[in-house]
Amino acid sequence: MEISALLTSAGINISICIVLLSLYSILRKQPANYCVYFGRRLVCGGARRYDPFWYERFVPSPSWLVKAWETSEDELLAAAGLDAVVFLRMVIFSIRIFFITAVVCIAFVLPVNYYGQPKVHKEIHLESSEVFTIENLKEGSKWLWVHCLALYIITSAACLLLYFEYRTIAKMRLGHITGSASKPSQFTVLIRAIPWSPDQSYSDTLSKYFTNYYSSSYMSHQMVYHNGIIQRLLLDAERMCQSLKHVAPEINCKPSLTPCTFCGGLTATNSFHILSNEGDSVKGMELGHKMSAHFQERPAAFVFFKTRYDALVVSEVLQTSNPMLWVTDLAPEPHDVYWRNLNIPYRQLWIRRIATLVGAVAFMFVFLIPVTFIQGLTQLQQLSHAFPFLRGILKEKFINQVITGYLPSVILILFFYAVPPLMMQLNVFSSVRDIPAQLARAVPTQAGFFTTYCFTSGWASLACEIMQPMALIWNLVAKAVSKNKDESYETLRFPYHTEIPRLLLFGLLGFTNSVIAPLILPFLLIYFFLAYLIYKNQILNVYITKYESGGQYWPIFHNTTIFSLLLTQIIALGFFGLKLSTVASGFTIPLILLTLLFSEYCRHRFAPIFHKHPAQVLIDMDRADKMAGKMEELHKKLHSVYSQIPLHSQKSSSKGECSTPFANQELPDPEKLKPEEGDAIAKELWGYQGNESGQEHEDKSCPSASSPEHRTPTMIELHKRS
Amino acid sequence: MEISALLTSAGINISICIVLLSLYSILRKQPANYCVYFGRRLVCGGARRYDPFWYERFVPSPSWLVKAWETSEDELLAAAGLDAVVFLRMVIFSIRIFFITAVVCIAFVLPVNYYGQPKVHKEIHLESSEVFTIENLKEGSKWLWVHCLALYIITSAACLLLYFEYRTIAKMRLGHITGSASKPSQFTVLIRAIPWSPDQSYSDTLSKYFTNYYSSSYMSHQMVYHNGIIQRLLLDAERMCQSLKHVAPEINCKPSLTPCTFCGGLTATNSFHILSNEGDSVKGMELGHKMSAHFQERPAAFVFFKTRYDALVVSEVLQTSNPMLWVTDLAPEPHDVYWRNLNIPYRQLWIRRIATLVGAVAFMFVFLIPVTFIQGLTQLQQLSHAFPFLRGILKEKFINQVITGYLPSVILILFFYAVPPLMMQLNVFSSVRDIPAQLARAVPTQAGFFTTYCFTSGWASLACEIMQPMALIWNLVAKAVSKNKDESYETLRFPYHTEIPRLLLFGLLGFTNSVIAPLILPFLLIYFFLAYLIYKNQILNVYITKYESGGQYWPIFHNTTIFSLLLTQIIALGFFGLKLSTVASGFTIPLILLTLLFSEYCRHRFAPIFHKHPAQVLIDMDRADKMAGKMEELHKKLHSVYSQIPLHSQKSSSKGECSTPFANQELPDPEKLKPEEGDAIAKELWGYQGNESGQEHEDKSCPSASSPEHRTPTMIELHKRS
Repeated sequence: MEISALLTSAGINISICIVLLSLYSILRKQPANYCVYFGRRLVCGGARRYDPFWYERFVPSPSWLVKAWETSEDELLAAAGLDAVVFLRMVIFSIRIFFITAVVCIAFVLPVNYYGQPKVHKEIHLESSEVFTIENLKEGSKWLWVHCLALYIITSAACLLLYFEYRTIAKMRLGHITGSASKPSQFTVLIRAIPWSPDQSYSDTLSKYFTNYYSSSYMSHQMVYHNGIIQRLLLDAERMCQSLKHVAPEINCKPSLTPCTFCGGLTATNSFHILSNEGDSVKGMELGHKMSAHFQERPAAFVFFKTRYDALVVSEVLQTSNPMLWVTDLAPEPHDVYWRNLNIPYRQLWIRRIATLVGAVAFMFVFLIPVTFIQGLTQLQQLSHAFPFLRGILKEKFINQVITGYLPSVILILFFYAVPPLMMQLNVFSSVRDIPAQLARAVPTQAGFFTTYCFTSGWASLACEIMQPMALIWNLVAKAVSKNKDESYETLRFPYHTEIPRLLLFGLLGFTNSVIAPLILPFLLIYFFLAYLIYKNQILNVYITKYESGGQYWPIFHNTTIFSLLLTQIIALGFFGLKLSTVASGFTIPLILLTLLFSEYCRHRFAPIFHKHPAQVLIDMDRADKMAGKMEELHKKLHSVYSQIPLHSQKSSSKGECSTPFANQELPDPEKLKPEEGDAIAKELWGYQGNESGQEHEDKSCPSASSPEHRTPTMIELHKRS
Repeated sequence: MEISALLTSAGINISICIVLLSLYSILRKQPANYCVYFGRRLVCGGARRYDPFWYERFVPSPSWLVKAWETSEDELLAAAGLDAVVFLRMVIFSIRIFFITAVVCIAFVLPVNYYGQPKVHKEIHLESSEVFTIENLKEGSKWLWVHCLALYIITSAACLLLYFEYRTIAKMRLGHITGSASKPSQFTVLIRAIPWSPDQSYSDTLSKYFTNYYSSSYMSHQMVYHNGIIQRLLLDAERMCQSLKHVAPEINCKPSLTPCTFCGGLTATNSFHILSNEGDSVKGMELGHKMSAHFQERPAAFVFFKTRYDALVVSEVLQTSNPMLWVTDLAPEPHDVYWRNLNIPYRQLWIRRIATLVGAVAFMFVFLIPVTFIQGLTQLQQLSHAFPFLRGILKEKFINQVITGYLPSVILILFFYAVPPLMMQLNVFSSVRDIPAQLARAVPTQAGFFTTYCFTSGWASLACEIMQPMALIWNLVAKAVSKNKDESYETLRFPYHTEIPRLLLFGLLGFTNSVIAPLILPFLLIYFFLAYLIYKNQILNVYITKYESGGQYWPIFHNTTIFSLLLTQIIALGFFGLKLSTVASGFTIPLILLTLLFSEYCRHRFAPIFHKHPAQVLIDMDRADKMAGKMEELHKKLHSVYSQIPLHSQKSSSKGECSTPFANQELPDPEKLKPEEGDAIAKELWGYQGNESGQEHEDKSCPSASSPEHRTPTMIELHKRS
């Protein structure tokens, strides 16, 4: 690929990006789109709407970039939780390491590559991009030590940065554990595979087991019921409530379904609270008994313990001599529980996991077909050979440039959005021992392709991310077609599952190309910088934090980065072998071993913190709570929050993620928008009110998006009914 | 290789075996060799020696075979522990599965292979052994379904047998945990990496930590001291004792070094017990203080807890937010502690582990050199090509047969005793995708070699095992050269680390050759049967059980057997591919998946029992002991048994492995030897006396072999000194 083709591709993408970002800065000011671009702000605390003048609304402005840049990490942590902070730290790590890499490689490696062979150079834009790769060096070149040294610098910098990041994030994680003092999940253990007994219910078996073996720490438990049963039960309850109302109309019949009425446990009353009349209690008992016939307990339960440490111990110890029974885990947060999954018998879980793995592998192999085709596109000769009718068109220069520089990765994206393109190297391998050399041959020839991939999958996808085209279209269609204002808008969660792999992929591309084809590095650096601003903006404005893992993504990032470093070193080793430099090869092998040692060290030093809770920390928390007399209060809450029946009391706890600090700290600066105007109207575009009265002014263009529970259809239904 | 060459090899080995086994049955009757062939019996309980008449002593007899055959599993368990039982169960499993395999493959697969091509067969002994392999089938043969079916039968039988064995052994392991009620290790946790503090000792740091966080369960602890210090301390103590004796000669000065005097802990007295005089106590304190300057605590300790469950919990929970500090593990048994290893800082351990791994890999690659040479020997043409002067000799038939049938594996054994010869296949691989086909090509051509390997490494090594040539020679030399009767004889422990890999290797050979070259199976079956008798005899007579893992070897055997099955299936898949049988290939793939599923199931169902102790079992044990009032007694013992200074009280506990049931049940039947004689002298060759008076008659030809402590030179020295 020529440099001009590369620049064409870069030009196309830069223009697209600028157009889309400008469009975004206009679209976000349209009141109709607030629920697309400020979904999070609408959910968290009421926001007063202010319609700017028409001419303001159609002028692009960079205020959002400034705002995103200025938000500090503490503000982000308070607003969006640890996962968001860890994600942005991944981006910052990438910026840092690729800044170092770019400086080292462009200052030292690139000139060595360019002047690698004694030949007359063309003008820069007519040069092939391969002139800048290591391929341009002649065999046995004495300048390969520069590459080897660069490799050492990059690896050392990466390891140092990784170490400090890991340490900081481990500290943050501990802070996350200790900071979230009143989490009910810390007192709760999820038990699966309760053994079946013919003469007693699962609930009885469970309470017998725990009162026998954990009498000093066991408090109570909450069974999991068959999901369908719960639905039917709710209907039954309402119907019964209606009939009771008919009999005794003086009873105020709100379906105030407090958990203990339904769920056995230690407070084993099967009667309704609404049966306050003593005379009706017998009837109520009968009804309750009839209802319990409907119960279909599953062999799973949430068990509550007196202290966090007790729960930790039970969750980590092997319970009985059959490891497939009494399987214990620390419970998820109440609003993270996916009740339907708890219905699956534990015996099936491992089979399901294997099936998922097999499916994923099969999926990857299916994608080899488009990948092979696309790889062919970058080699024009092959293309014109395969499709003779294209020969005429391909001779035209611009089309040629577009096809080699842009089209392949666009097609790839269409086919292949989710699967890392590392697979495209798979069909190259045919020999075990020659993998380094084969990789070394494959990477530079694909360097141009990877660069354009960075443009399309990287830059353009970031622009897509901020534009939210799907949500935008959906919003427009919904408004145009269905006039029903009451339809709930789906507030999105940050798609960590696609964005972290994308970051990792670009990291992999950056490392592997660093010393071999350093031309990609500036483009990557632009990508990471843009990613930092855009993701930060999106996290602050669009996405809500529903599930908080406490930074558990970091070890994945760490390990994959180490893998990328190792792959880089192996490819470089192959290259040094191909270029017959024994010195450089010899110096690379210790580097590989040192990197492996570093990886092992981190695995011992930090990884356990991300899988287990330290006992010392939990014991200290328990003590602090006991001293402060908070324990009682915490215990009281436990039973009600893990209720399979959606309760009103749950709302407040699951709404905890929209924290108040955000409302205070995250005020956008409308002054930046129009600082010259002294008008009071322009003082703020969005005003936040921490107090409850703010709810009145709630934006009604995306109505009833006030709490995350509204998001599943069942919940909405139940909510409406109540 | 011709069948006659194979039979030559078999003949040579069978004769060697018969000669050696006859020799053994004579040698074992010589009183001078008792300590070689009855080491275990000499150690465990005194044995009266009886010298048979001279003519009895020189007649070979099969009585030992009968005895070994008749010993039941319960007797073996009582005598030699669970590890020995599990090892013999591995042998029994191998006999069972290879009996089934041999029947299936010789009845169905062998005829199909033999008549695979329509040609005139020679006489059997002139046939090449390759006629019996799957290679003899013509391409696209319709008879390959027989092989596929055989594969299914073998895999199903193996999985069923493995499942039942795993279940039985898991039960036995639980029985082992519950049965050994008074094990101090169950109450003890080994702590490593105690953090260093400038203003207090490790011991203080530890007791502060545990009294703070585990006040309800923590009892006391026992620091680990620098090994050299302990030695010097013992010397100092004796010297001081001497000087004190000089000052106050009335004090009875026996160096009665009870543990609490030296080892801080909770009973932190640095004075001697012998300082009973009040006036001397001040002086004693000074001396003690001076001594404590000698102390050099290591950041490791044994911590004792009130119940087994408490110890389990502390050992399994992550202690603090730094996983490299306060590292906890369940303690080993007191006599299993290798104090020198506890001196190694925890931070070094993982580096050492990696170094070991790297060393092992390097070691394997070094062994590729002799293996390549030996592999060449089986192809005679290559040999005569490489060494032209051998051509004349090689033409002679017998030499030809010996060289191809016997020599290669003998040379291999010499070079290569410890490393599995699977590596020899390594340099064949050059393509990832063709591994099954390449394996399929490689295995049958090496079938002859593997068969002779079975003779030499299998049969002959068993004969060596029972003969104990090294011990025999050592015994003779020791008796002839040094007349010092007091020299201690080293009682051996069963070499699980070489014998289990050997069993596994023969299992691998058996499985991989089963459907491809079934001719090896009868020879393997003979090997396993012989192994059963010989190992049983050796476990009963020769080896002592010093370290008892409680059957933890089994999961290794299980997993490796699954690996062998999978490799067999992959090789068969390659063969079905080579022979162009899509049906057989198609049916093999589900078999592979099913085997993997089975493996996963067992990993979930049984494996955790072999890594963790079930809480329920330990709690029940604690309760039973509390009810019986044994707890106090157990607690008292704890501190003294984990003492770095060898104590007399330790002897009794570490001698526990020579259990009394053995003395009662394991009487050899001398009647079998000479049933026709009514002479009282011939009634028993060995008489056991469970009571202490038996010690008087202790066999003095291998003196002072009465307790395992005598085995390390330091201990002997210390023992003598005291």
